Amino acid sequence: MIETIPGNIIAPKGFKTGSVHCGLKRNKRNHDIGIIFSEQPCKTAALFTTNQIVAAPIKQSRNVVKNGKAHAIVVNSGNANACTGKKGERDAETMALLTAEHLNIKPDEVLVASTGIIGHHLPMEKIKSGISKSSQRLGNQSTHAINIAKAIMTTDLVPKHIAVKTKINGKEVTIGAIAKGSGMISPDMATMFCFITTDAAISLNTLRSCIKRSTENSFNQITVDGHMSTSDMVAILANGMAHNRTITSSTKNDLTLFQKALDYITLNMAKEIVKDGEGATKFVQIEIHEAKSISDAKKIARTISESPLVKTAINGEDPNWGRIVSAAGYAGVTLDESKLKLSINNVTIYRKGLPVTPTPKRLCSVMKKDEITIQLYLGTGDKSATLWTCDLSKKYVSINADYHT
Amino acid sequence: MIETIPGNIIAPKGFKTGSVHCGLKRNKRNHDIGIIFSEQPCKTAALFTTNQIVAAPIKQSRNVVKNGKAHAIVVNSGNANACTGKKGERDAETMALLTAEHLNIKPDEVLVASTGIIGHHLPMEKIKSGISKSSQRLGNQSTHAINIAKAIMTTDLVPKHIAVKTKINGKEVTIGAIAKGSGMISPDMATMFCFITTDAAISLNTLRSCIKRSTENSFNQITVDGHMSTSDMVAILANGMAHNRTITSSTKNDLTLFQKALDYITLNMAKEIVKDGEGATKFVQIEIHEAKSISDAKKIARTISESPLVKTAINGEDPNWGRIVSAAGYAGVTLDESKLKLSINNVTIYRKGLPVTPTPKRLCSVMKKDEITIQLYLGTGDKSATLWTCDLSKKYVSINADYHT
Repeated sequence: MIETIPGNIIAPKGFKTGSVHCGLKRNKRNHDIGIIFSEQPCKTAALFTTNQIVAAPIKQSRNVVKNGKAHAIVVNSGNANACTGKKGERDAETMALLTAEHLNIKPDEVLVASTGIIGHHLPMEKIKSGISKSSQRLGNQSTHAINIAKAIMTTDLVPKHIAVKTKINGKEVTIGAIAKGSGMISPDMATMFCFITTDAAISLNTLRSCIKRSTENSFNQITVDGHMSTSDMVAILANGMAHNRTITSSTKNDLTLFQKALDYITLNMAKEIVKDGEGATKFVQIEIHEAKSISDAKKIARTISESPLVKTAINGEDPNWGRIVSAAGYAGVTLDESKLKLSINNVTIYRKGLPVTPTPKRLCSVMKKDEITIQLYLGTGDKSATLWTCDLSKKYVSINADYHT
Repeated sequence: MIETIPGNIIAPKGFKTGSVHCGLKRNKRNHDIGIIFSEQPCKTAALFTTNQIVAAPIKQSRNVVKNGKAHAIVVNSGNANACTGKKGERDAETMALLTAEHLNIKPDEVLVASTGIIGHHLPMEKIKSGISKSSQRLGNQSTHAINIAKAIMTTDLVPKHIAVKTKINGKEVTIGAIAKGSGMISPDMATMFCFITTDAAISLNTLRSCIKRSTENSFNQITVDGHMSTSDMVAILANGMAHNRTITSSTKNDLTLFQKALDYITLNMAKEIVKDGEGATKFVQIEIHEAKSISDAKKIARTISESPLVKTAINGEDPNWGRIVSAAGYAGVTLDESKLKLSINNVTIYRKGLPVTPTPKRLCSVMKKDEITIQLYLGTGDKSATLWTCDLSKKYVSINADYHT
């Protein structure tokens, strides 16, 4: 039983958060820096961008995650601290140091994350004041929860947050999360973050494998525009304050329950990011079935999802299925055309390599729905993969062409 | 000395063409089917789409090219004859048969090409009448040349054609070409074709290697929207009527001269396709220098060219260089951030992993130019690659979202 509850990352026992406007965003009502703090030290695991060009805070956070111990996260929006060289790295270290000083914890247990424009040095005076004020405002009221969810937003239109509770071996365990992202990544004003807190007692190795597994089928299976950020980060902090029997690979049942709750959280956050995709008017689920391998299925789903022709057809509510089939054809996976079947929202339009004639009448009406499911059956195996994306609209071009650095 | 001359594919000796409106396009003034014919049988070499979903005419043409002998090309626009199963294959064969009958040549020496919407059977009565009329209208006047260039257009705004003459071992040799393409591929109303004719005498093996080499650095180095067609085709016909000494791998000097003229033709046609890219307002050249390998350089150029964030920034004349550097970072090539240098139209904005400060004033004015050259230096080797693309505009979305099948 997974029950959603309010309070996002401060719903689990022992977590507090504080945030303020320090001057990185223009509008003074918008918070742009914040701290997430756990009363007890936490085990931590995280996944970072695989981009070769890595923002400075990611370098700092990687070292923390290597040790597996964290006590706090400090995060700012409005400036990504990326492509900023050695000075950028020192600035990220300073953020950790200042946060540690104020909270009386170790600097190598502070995760740092920054999102916003690339290629500008952080205004450190503003950052210093922001960290100081955020640490003074730590709390676990509902306003704290909503403020931190908003403080990490850039081009996001809505805050993205969730918390769930579940029972593991008789104990109530809570997991909460906040996330941001609107372009899959837009290096000037958007990257993808998800910070997850839990009071579960869990071994470090198990925490690492749980977050990896969960990310593979959620955040790694979404795309808005196919542009990977220098700053992507999914991190989980587990402080053990639920006092459940420690979850390890040996407590199979506990592990399954925890993984299920975590998957629920990450999939929810991933879908929220796609729904808030820049300029998005449609939420699109791409299912590839009957593939030889999951990797084949993922490749095809990814290729379809990144075709601007598929994305504009969906934007135009046009059942132009030839674009979908031809995109599948250049995914680098061997296909047998005569075995293919394609349905959109369960209306089949292409079967055994031939168009279904006459064209089903329901096809035009299903394209008008807000949620479109593309179902491609390869007929060559029994593996599946699902990916979530959105359409490509004129508004996406506006957001990214009319914005000036 | 390469001299451009009028007459496109009928500029070389012995080639004729004829085209008509047979009813595939709505506007009766637009030709939609045509034949390219050589008085003498030709050696032929061609490259086809690597899409797993292959249009029926490509299957037919592949067999012709295997034998290396062709006498004519029959081509229609308005219907791609793709995703049409066995009936589609029979229809493509019928096109070759009918053309061969009218011209008194062998059907297995007729290349067939179709471009247009996917998933609809060809209206064979219209096609039959179109082939019959085209064969009656064969000629080598300038109107024939312009008509065939227009007959293969779909969403193209301008016809694309060229002819050049050069001297090889004392003999005048002529090469001509027509091309189409506006989306790199748009499976409803666009694919990329280039048909090249020459009167050069050349061995089949040499012809094959020449066209392959030439395509690698021209058509394979352009992209409008990254969506690969089911129908792409570049084919060359060489009838030997220039009576030059036969070009082979042993006649190095002749080969170099021919390759140079052919490269000139294919690069010109490739660039024309990009300039006529759907919704394009800018012509963009992406140069990657100092790479470890050409393949690394090509990968990075491709990744930058396919980023909608880079393409929209160029559309908005925004010098948002962080998008270019971060795209390079996820190309799958190892980079050393501290060695990178980025210039736009020779204005350097990022050097040794750091932004150039203050930002060069000329940067904003160079972004307003119609032709943008992105120059990324990796500092890890001495290999280079160049790729050509265009921006992503609201008009691209309109063309592909507002069009209804």
